[in-house]
Amino acid sequence: MKGEKRVESDLALIDKVRKRQPLIHHITNGVTINDCANITLSCGASPVMADAPEEAADMTRLASALVLNIGTLHQDQVETMIQAGLAANKKGIPVVLDPVGVGATPMRTEAARRLMNRVQITHLKGNAAEIATLAGVQAEVRGVDSGQVGSDLETLAKKAAQIWGVTVTVTGARDWITDGQEQIEVVNGHELMSTVSGTGCMSASVLAAFAATGEDPVASAVSAMATYGVAAEQAARRSRGPGSFRVELFDAIASLTGEQVKEAACVTWRG
Amino acid sequence: MKGEKRVESDLALIDKVRKRQPLIHHITNGVTINDCANITLSCGASPVMADAPEEAADMTRLASALVLNIGTLHQDQVETMIQAGLAANKKGIPVVLDPVGVGATPMRTEAARRLMNRVQITHLKGNAAEIATLAGVQAEVRGVDSGQVGSDLETLAKKAAQIWGVTVTVTGARDWITDGQEQIEVVNGHELMSTVSGTGCMSASVLAAFAATGEDPVASAVSAMATYGVAAEQAARRSRGPGSFRVELFDAIASLTGEQVKEAACVTWRG
Amino acid sequence: MKGEKRVESDLALIDKVRKRQPLIHHITNGVTINDCANITLSCGASPVMADAPEEAADMTRLASALVLNIGTLHQDQVETMIQAGLAANKKGIPVVLDPVGVGATPMRTEAARRLMNRVQITHLKGNAAEIATLAGVQAEVRGVDSGQVGSDLETLAKKAAQIWGVTVTVTGARDWITDGQEQIEVVNGHELMSTVSGTGCMSASVLAAFAATGEDPVASAVSAMATYGVAAEQAARRSRGPGSFRVELFDAIASLTGEQVKEAACVTWRG
Repeated sequence: MKGEKRVESDLALIDKVRKRQPLIHHITNGVTINDCANITLSCGASPVMADAPEEAADMTRLASALVLNIGTLHQDQVETMIQAGLAANKKGIPVVLDPVGVGATPMRTEAARRLMNRVQITHLKGNAAEIATLAGVQAEVRGVDSGQVGSDLETLAKKAAQIWGVTVTVTGARDWITDGQEQIEVVNGHELMSTVSGTGCMSASVLAAFAATGEDPVASAVSAMATYGVAAEQAARRSRGPGSFRVELFDAIASLTGEQVKEAACVTWRG
Repeated sequence: MKGEKRVESDLALIDKVRKRQPLIHHITNGVTINDCANITLSCGASPVMADAPEEAADMTRLASALVLNIGTLHQDQVETMIQAGLAANKKGIPVVLDPVGVGATPMRTEAARRLMNRVQITHLKGNAAEIATLAGVQAEVRGVDSGQVGSDLETLAKKAAQIWGVTVTVTGARDWITDGQEQIEVVNGHELMSTVSGTGCMSASVLAAFAATGEDPVASAVSAMATYGVAAEQAARRSRGPGSFRVELFDAIASLTGEQVKEAACVTWRG
Repeated sequence: MKGEKRVESDLALIDKVRKRQPLIHHITNGVTINDCANITLSCGASPVMADAPEEAADMTRLASALVLNIGTLHQDQVETMIQAGLAANKKGIPVVLDPVGVGATPMRTEAARRLMNRVQITHLKGNAAEIATLAGVQAEVRGVDSGQVGSDLETLAKKAAQIWGVTVTVTGARDWITDGQEQIEVVNGHELMSTVSGTGCMSASVLAAFAATGEDPVASAVSAMATYGVAAEQAARRSRGPGSFRVELFDAIASLTGEQVKEAACVTWRG
């Protein structure tokens, strides 16, 4: 009952994003930086991307949420990310960490762990392999390629959330969200998402825009993933392939109402 | 009358851009760099983006105009921008400065002022807040969010143009262009422009492509803003949201003729 | 006859790319990096972009092909490219060099030559001016602007291929491929390609994805250029300008089958 009530009240959170137009500061990768800016705008929030060490923390102090993405990380960016993260912590705004490709190289894994240790992350978002790697149990991951979250990972995500005090969002064919207490599954989305670079990075921007409203982390993550997934479903219906899907995704999320998300969302609250 | 005659003669300037295909060198931000390259091509000019200190000035010497954009500035880029700017000054080609986000952080404000002091800028293009900040009167800005240029800003832009010897283009729902003597208002454009990242940056590329024809700065700016605005209006008619608007914007500007711009332009010359 | 048999057997190579989903590591320019990632995905391969000196070679060791593109080169990237290139050579995976703008500035020319000297390049891909410049005979280039490959360049490309032991792909209205022995012309493609930034860079990604299958270099290059060109022809039929062409290009290549490429390819094997 509690779960169902939350779903009722929170799935229209995009309406609040549009009303508040929060500024979302990104320190992110160079491949998908433009997509992240545009999806932030399409949600009704405002993006700013500033990663110079001389101004990153200053920019964070103007923002309502911070996204850290290590997709094309350079070593000197890690310290900049930490400074921006600490500024966010001090201001009390949510920090979303997208540990892109963690586990692929030692540098990336070390950088992600250092960020986790130095900054109080609010939202950790990644695919099954990334979340498992960060938690140090790469060998136990099941079904990464198929986007399935195995039962091992459910347990793992829950424990990771408890240890670090973060809300974990594991993306895939089903998205899995947990703060260590509650566990929620969102099954909206479309397989075309995996054919476009940046759909993962963009989900972190959406998450940050929703978190910036001040709603509690789990509610923000559920609403963000459902909204993004519903938009992807609508976009897929108008698309002929990855190029048109990407265009339609911006159009779809920009025209979505909270009411439409509530109707189309497929969310299971596991309490 | 003088004003009206100029409008007649200059609004078809895109035809000349296409004929000359000028090379436009950009030192610009990482968020919208691809959009800037593509809008330059769609205008009929050729883009080149090179920001290594070892080659930036060399590249400027091959170009017919230079765009400096501080949207994702790093500290060491400032000196590179100055070197490229000085090379442009020496060659006598126009320099467009887009002081993105000036005023948001001390680093950005200082960098923009340093560029203004060291390089003879031809065109200063920004929104009302950016232009006002650069002129040191942030507190007096009116209606930035609504895109309106208040009467204070008109006075301010005029004074800024006189002091620095630049042509100022203040973008918004109405674009306002002045060289300190003439004042021109262009009201073409569409509100969808504010839903896509990079529409501001792209207007600087269009401006540079037009300025590269050798027309006088005011005439170039008026023609560029009118052309870009007419293209945006056409694109909006074919769009369902920000994703499709962006695609249509490139298509629209690529197929526009000077004659069509002259017919659809909404320009008021205030003498 | 030999030529015709090869064409029969190799033009459907995209089917093998989709089956193997090779990881393609790019160290590339910031203007078109997103397009390169997306065209790689649309071919059925997986892109990764990592250019930090601390991890670039590590990432190459996970990949099945490496793309080096000097479009927005910084001086410190050259050594990173060399380290990644040497890792690729050691692993025995193909290396594609796209010497964007070589000849425009001394820095760029020197960097490209240094890469050629230090790394065993598999595929050298560029337009006529770039290939000629690298081979040190800029003055002899004919018809660069029109995209025509003059007879001088045919001879030149052949010699360059022999001297360096690379497969040379000269792109233009006609693509010209040679390994110093065989010479093949591919005339698929569309003039809209020259109106979109990144169509050249993307062809290097397609080439790398095809080369990663392990087919011989000439066969890979012919199949890649024919596939990309056929996709461009399909995209052009659905486009109204550069914006829509770019969208349709991703859709087209993502839905192409090897059978369709074989039917539409226009390849002349000159033996």
